[in-house]
Amino acid sequence: MANDIVYFSEEQSEDAVISRMDRSKVDPRLYSVMGSLIKHLHAFIKEVEPTNDEWMAGVKFLTRTGHMSTDWRQEFILLSDTLGVSMLVETINNRKPSGATETTVLGPFYISDAPRYPHGANICLDGKGEPLLVRGRVTDIDGRPIKGALLDVWQANDEGFYDVQQKGTQPDMNLRGIFETGADGSYWFKSVKPRFYPIPDDGPVGQLLAALARHPFRPAHIHFIVGADGFRPITTHVFDPDDPYLATDAVFGVKESLIVEFHKVDDPAEIARVGFDGPYWETVCDFVLAKA
Amino acid sequence: MANDIVYFSEEQSEDAVISRMDRSKVDPRLYSVMGSLIKHLHAFIKEVEPTNDEWMAGVKFLTRTGHMSTDWRQEFILLSDTLGVSMLVETINNRKPSGATETTVLGPFYISDAPRYPHGANICLDGKGEPLLVRGRVTDIDGRPIKGALLDVWQANDEGFYDVQQKGTQPDMNLRGIFETGADGSYWFKSVKPRFYPIPDDGPVGQLLAALARHPFRPAHIHFIVGADGFRPITTHVFDPDDPYLATDAVFGVKESLIVEFHKVDDPAEIARVGFDGPYWETVCDFVLAKA
Repeated sequence: MANDIVYFSEEQSEDAVISRMDRSKVDPRLYSVMGSLIKHLHAFIKEVEPTNDEWMAGVKFLTRTGHMSTDWRQEFILLSDTLGVSMLVETINNRKPSGATETTVLGPFYISDAPRYPHGANICLDGKGEPLLVRGRVTDIDGRPIKGALLDVWQANDEGFYDVQQKGTQPDMNLRGIFETGADGSYWFKSVKPRFYPIPDDGPVGQLLAALARHPFRPAHIHFIVGADGFRPITTHVFDPDDPYLATDAVFGVKESLIVEFHKVDDPAEIARVGFDGPYWETVCDFVLAKA
Repeated sequence: MANDIVYFSEEQSEDAVISRMDRSKVDPRLYSVMGSLIKHLHAFIKEVEPTNDEWMAGVKFLTRTGHMSTDWRQEFILLSDTLGVSMLVETINNRKPSGATETTVLGPFYISDAPRYPHGANICLDGKGEPLLVRGRVTDIDGRPIKGALLDVWQANDEGFYDVQQKGTQPDMNLRGIFETGADGSYWFKSVKPRFYPIPDDGPVGQLLAALARHPFRPAHIHFIVGADGFRPITTHVFDPDDPYLATDAVFGVKESLIVEFHKVDDPAEIARVGFDGPYWETVCDFVLAKA
């Protein structure tokens, strides 16, 4: 037998597995990813020294997670979300020059063909919830306004559901819209105050969260995709600072810089000017884009 | 907001996730295992910096692996086997005093109620394959024979299949048997030379092996569970040194100490003495047990 054979042993278990790949015949990126996976996976096993029963519990958890996943429900993405992996991948892929608005996860409820609206339009089509005015500016990292930037907006309603989760109950395209900035980089629109909501927690990931004494809630937020010619688009949220789950988002989507202010406006002149029927919430959401 | 909130950032992503568990309410072992998992998982992600497409490819691979798993086929165990994790867990859980026979994986083909046979019996019930004589001794770590030790033996046939994989083709309980050592710790029985065989490779794990330029074969081996009163039982294999896949077992079950000799016997006196019809293979498989 050749001298370079690496038989399995506890001490060199990683090498035994990694050396089995034929580097000359494997895609270089796959070779590198699998080498890293094997190294970290074995380090994990060596650190926790699972019993056979614990190992089997892991096998069964992954199997249930696979069985829960369908065309309509992706339990492995939920697992990735709740372990912070989705946010980490998103963050790594969206490092930007200092000063640009930070990004966060897209989430599963985006629809690409939301209606275009003029400034001031109300994206709440069923009138339910506390009125909210959203306004702000889109600028470059030097503070110069960006004209013609598009803001693609979507959010849950005051009960924590997106339109696509309540077809027939909410109007189609409720709480979705696309707005374009004016010459001063500004935009504004009407909506309702969003509410926190749980991620699907009736599967193995929900059971894991419960075992870890973690709740399944995402704090109230509004989704934005903001883009403009010559700039790198951003996918992000803004968060309500008063939400009870702000500090404990089940999917770790909150970044400190994405927490905005929500303040109550009850000045009758302002109410009349923006066109609400009574007091409303207002939030100012500015976005900074980096050059493409 | 409290000062001890850890919002998500690339730099402290592990802490953000780990700190979310409420230590006072979580089972201590689960807390420790999940903390280690999160730490190593994030280290892996930070090292490889997956693109969104690569992350999604991982999600889809795990989903297919779950969907392939049924009551009859456990693709996640295959994944664990082929990444060396099963052998690592097995090895960690079977550290023994120096000198005891090393262990290896049980495998999926064990049946607990094999027939008891006297020394010299032939466990090959259909006469197919090259005759093999297996003999040896069971001793303690000081070399003292252990009388009354039981050896539970099973193996694939000369085509690489276990009886349970070929019901109706092979006789029930073909190539299985339990033997008891005599006063000198010895045992012997007749069988056939086993052959290498592939693990199931028609699923995602088989596709992964192919992408890594790895074959799916396990080298020829004979399974043993050896136990005796007052000693710690061992689950192990012995391997044929001439097998083409000896150095590259798809599940890393080979340990150097488990490779035995297979030699050809063509002395007519020996052939007559053991009761074969012609030349046969012989292997000497000694086992050393540690005190319970």
